[in-house]
Amino acid sequence: MFIENAWYVGAWPEELQFGNLLSRRILGQQILFYRQADGTATALIDECCHRKAPLSVGVQEADNVRCMYHGLVFAPDGRCVEIPGQDVISPRIRVRSYPVVEQDGYIWIWMGEPERAKTEDIIPRPWQASSEWAWKPGYVHVGADYRLIMDNLLDFSHLSFVHQNSFGGSRSMANTQAKIERIDGGIRIKRQYPSDPVPPYISRLAPTLEGPVDRWQTYEWRTLGNLLDLDSGFAPAGKGALDGVDVPGALRFHSIQSLTPETETSTHYFWSYTRNFDLDNEALSDKILDETYAGLEEDKVMIEAQQQVVLRTGDHDLMALSMDAGVVQGRNMLKRALAEDRGAAAA
Amino acid sequence: MFIENAWYVGAWPEELQFGNLLSRRILGQQILFYRQADGTATALIDECCHRKAPLSVGVQEADNVRCMYHGLVFAPDGRCVEIPGQDVISPRIRVRSYPVVEQDGYIWIWMGEPERAKTEDIIPRPWQASSEWAWKPGYVHVGADYRLIMDNLLDFSHLSFVHQNSFGGSRSMANTQAKIERIDGGIRIKRQYPSDPVPPYISRLAPTLEGPVDRWQTYEWRTLGNLLDLDSGFAPAGKGALDGVDVPGALRFHSIQSLTPETETSTHYFWSYTRNFDLDNEALSDKILDETYAGLEEDKVMIEAQQQVVLRTGDHDLMALSMDAGVVQGRNMLKRALAEDRGAAAA
Amino acid sequence: MFIENAWYVGAWPEELQFGNLLSRRILGQQILFYRQADGTATALIDECCHRKAPLSVGVQEADNVRCMYHGLVFAPDGRCVEIPGQDVISPRIRVRSYPVVEQDGYIWIWMGEPERAKTEDIIPRPWQASSEWAWKPGYVHVGADYRLIMDNLLDFSHLSFVHQNSFGGSRSMANTQAKIERIDGGIRIKRQYPSDPVPPYISRLAPTLEGPVDRWQTYEWRTLGNLLDLDSGFAPAGKGALDGVDVPGALRFHSIQSLTPETETSTHYFWSYTRNFDLDNEALSDKILDETYAGLEEDKVMIEAQQQVVLRTGDHDLMALSMDAGVVQGRNMLKRALAEDRGAAAA
Ligand code: FES
Ligand code: FES
Ligand code: FES
Repeated sequence: MFIENAWYVGAWPEELQFGNLLSRRILGQQILFYRQADGTATALIDECCHRKAPLSVGVQEADNVRCMYHGLVFAPDGRCVEIPGQDVISPRIRVRSYPVVEQDGYIWIWMGEPERAKTEDIIPRPWQASSEWAWKPGYVHVGADYRLIMDNLLDFSHLSFVHQNSFGGSRSMANTQAKIERIDGGIRIKRQYPSDPVPPYISRLAPTLEGPVDRWQTYEWRTLGNLLDLDSGFAPAGKGALDGVDVPGALRFHSIQSLTPETETSTHYFWSYTRNFDLDNEALSDKILDETYAGLEEDKVMIEAQQQVVLRTGDHDLMALSMDAGVVQGRNMLKRALAEDRGAAAA
Repeated sequence: MFIENAWYVGAWPEELQFGNLLSRRILGQQILFYRQADGTATALIDECCHRKAPLSVGVQEADNVRCMYHGLVFAPDGRCVEIPGQDVISPRIRVRSYPVVEQDGYIWIWMGEPERAKTEDIIPRPWQASSEWAWKPGYVHVGADYRLIMDNLLDFSHLSFVHQNSFGGSRSMANTQAKIERIDGGIRIKRQYPSDPVPPYISRLAPTLEGPVDRWQTYEWRTLGNLLDLDSGFAPAGKGALDGVDVPGALRFHSIQSLTPETETSTHYFWSYTRNFDLDNEALSDKILDETYAGLEEDKVMIEAQQQVVLRTGDHDLMALSMDAGVVQGRNMLKRALAEDRGAAAA
Repeated sequence: MFIENAWYVGAWPEELQFGNLLSRRILGQQILFYRQADGTATALIDECCHRKAPLSVGVQEADNVRCMYHGLVFAPDGRCVEIPGQDVISPRIRVRSYPVVEQDGYIWIWMGEPERAKTEDIIPRPWQASSEWAWKPGYVHVGADYRLIMDNLLDFSHLSFVHQNSFGGSRSMANTQAKIERIDGGIRIKRQYPSDPVPPYISRLAPTLEGPVDRWQTYEWRTLGNLLDLDSGFAPAGKGALDGVDVPGALRFHSIQSLTPETETSTHYFWSYTRNFDLDNEALSDKILDETYAGLEEDKVMIEAQQQVVLRTGDHDLMALSMDAGVVQGRNMLKRALAEDRGAAAA
């Protein structure tokens, strides 16, 4: 069950090059992404309306796409503009086109009713587009329902176990109660770990940072589009970083994550792990990318295993413990949003 | 949905050698083909009636087949003729046998009610059996509903796109209107392309034939058995070849194609590309085989991709444009024939 | 359809080592086997009750298992004994635990209602635990319904065909009528082959044994747990071995086999082939293991092929011939036992 009336991250901008036809399934629909000559990102359903050949097996011609089965040509708005051997083209001959916006280093796509797509509803995520933050794009394909990944992100207690050798490193995440508050369209979760050991991945990235550190994670989760924006950092302990003091030697990251459902049981996981220091250090960017991939791979293994059990048992109302306060709120928000989305579709 | 009361091409004769048990699924039924000592081609269902072991895991003994699970022996008519440890054999102990005829270089099999199988109903296809035509047998397994391949064959406009580097070569196929007429049990389609470029595959096969050429395709499609007989040729342009003049230097081919459904979504595609010139040129035969394989591989890629979309969307009533006149007639004939076949089965 | 209230062989003892979490599906349920510090074999369902992560992805801690998603710890009886960040643990938070007994060289598991599990109901199989018999553990995974393997074991006529180059060697098995008698919870089948050739596998194992031999097979099949205990042997012919004389130079084996359903269409096949001679000959043990593997591989090929046909045709009431007297009795016993088991479950 998906929310259709929402902006989702559909692709990284560099995936779309003029002449390249990118086919990707999103919310169960097969989408063809391409760029027009002026750079405009475009999305059509990847199914020729004639006899259902995939347009992605075709070719781009200027701003249009030609189906290479029988040669029909479609414009960016989905209208058929050429039928070999036929002069008159009914305007009913068209494929579905999808609203697409390129913003903040993302290709956003709107999967619902086109007339409801409003660019101003796209959540601003300034970091990737800013020259003050350095980053590289990351992508993981997860063979699991996006809701299981959402659950994972809304309860960081799993860092102590799943990520004991990467993002975690101590039992603090499991033993610390998070502060949860509602924000517009989502929730904000705050976690602070005063005087904690340096987690393994930070030891590898910044060997000179000796513990203990004051560590924090503040993140916002938004139901529409499954967006997580995470501010996290590490400062030498006891200098007041958790009370807002700008402590020298502190490391600060902003991780931005987007879950775009592919099917009921698979998800595109787009992420970046931006930093506001040592901006020109390419090698550091690569190392951060590698560390993040390694950590998310730990999630992927666990969540895909969990998905298999859920499929086998048919059970999706999972037990909630006290650690699951965020998960429960997130799932409730999602249920309401799904009902609202279906209402919109019915209206 | 298959027509059962029809002769289908089941195998190439050289696939059946004495002692070799060939198992092939046809219309969803698993068939065991083998040859008796006198060369008679034989087909039984590939399921032992005892406890369902495949007979093809067994062995041929003279004209019979022994199931190697518990040793029952079946004769070509399907009757069980030996049960180890048991003297009396009820005549009810038998497996289904299928009418089989070897004719015109094909092993034909009748999948419907045996009493309706009449050898004289087999469409004569004299080319392969004739010494005036040279050829080699071809086979492609296509992971698609036979109806999608039939659609493909009934609309040659796709040559301009799918086969632009092989059978096609110009937009003429897409821009030319075909002449379609009814024949007994099928349709005849005529296409003529006066003064057309030499298509890429012919350039490679006959480098000395310079364009432009007068080109023609006349083919008959028959619904029962999914049979296509295609007369095609290329003659130096403007010498009257399209009006029946026997132009020196013209090349003429007869391509014979047979679609035998394997399952609802897969098809055995038997074909040959016969020629009536340069008969002893083995190397040419091999080259023609290779070129045809390459061209049909282009179809296979497109049709299998189309099948995936059709499966995903559940849609089988595909849009018909003006280029689809033949497709529409073919599909209508098929619907009538299917209804008739089911009526026959019910009667 | 499985009998749940029965003891099944779940694992070989050496598969369970302290700290090693073994996950195996049994009767469609995913089971986690492990050993406690004192060696006690233990089985829990391999699904964390929290959010369905597999416990087998977790770690053993002393006698308990920690789920490595969010750190819950479960004791051998299934009770949750630790929840990170939470002090009070409701006794309802638990996973299913299964009665397990280690006896006679097997890990037995009871899949039904725990209160019905009685250790004294486990069929004694003294050979593996005895110093008078030498053996090695064998395991084959068969992609077929356990009932098809049961059928195979209840009709040795297949030895003449499936195993003509291994366990069989002559047509005697197919031509000899078995003596069948009821025993408690099963049937006993006796087959005797006076003055028979030495079968191929025995020729390879004991080249000095020249034929003909008097050969016998006496086996007991028990419906609960799908257990087969087979006494077989080969003695120089005509010396009275079949009448109970202890003939010098005779070879005697006791093969013990257990079919534990994995899913509706796959089975764990545990077996050993014990002997009471030449006990210290390791090389001979290995050879016997290899020969038995080779023979059972022949069964596996045939039965998996049969399973595919049964799946395709949806047919499970297979034809019974006179050779199938044991099969028919076995199937009838199974039907009654299944009905009884469902009655127990309903009561
Ligand atoms: S399927 Fe696309 S043009 Fe025919
Ligand atoms: S299954 Fe063929 S003889 Fe038994
Ligand atoms: S799923 Fe096992 S602790 Fe959460």
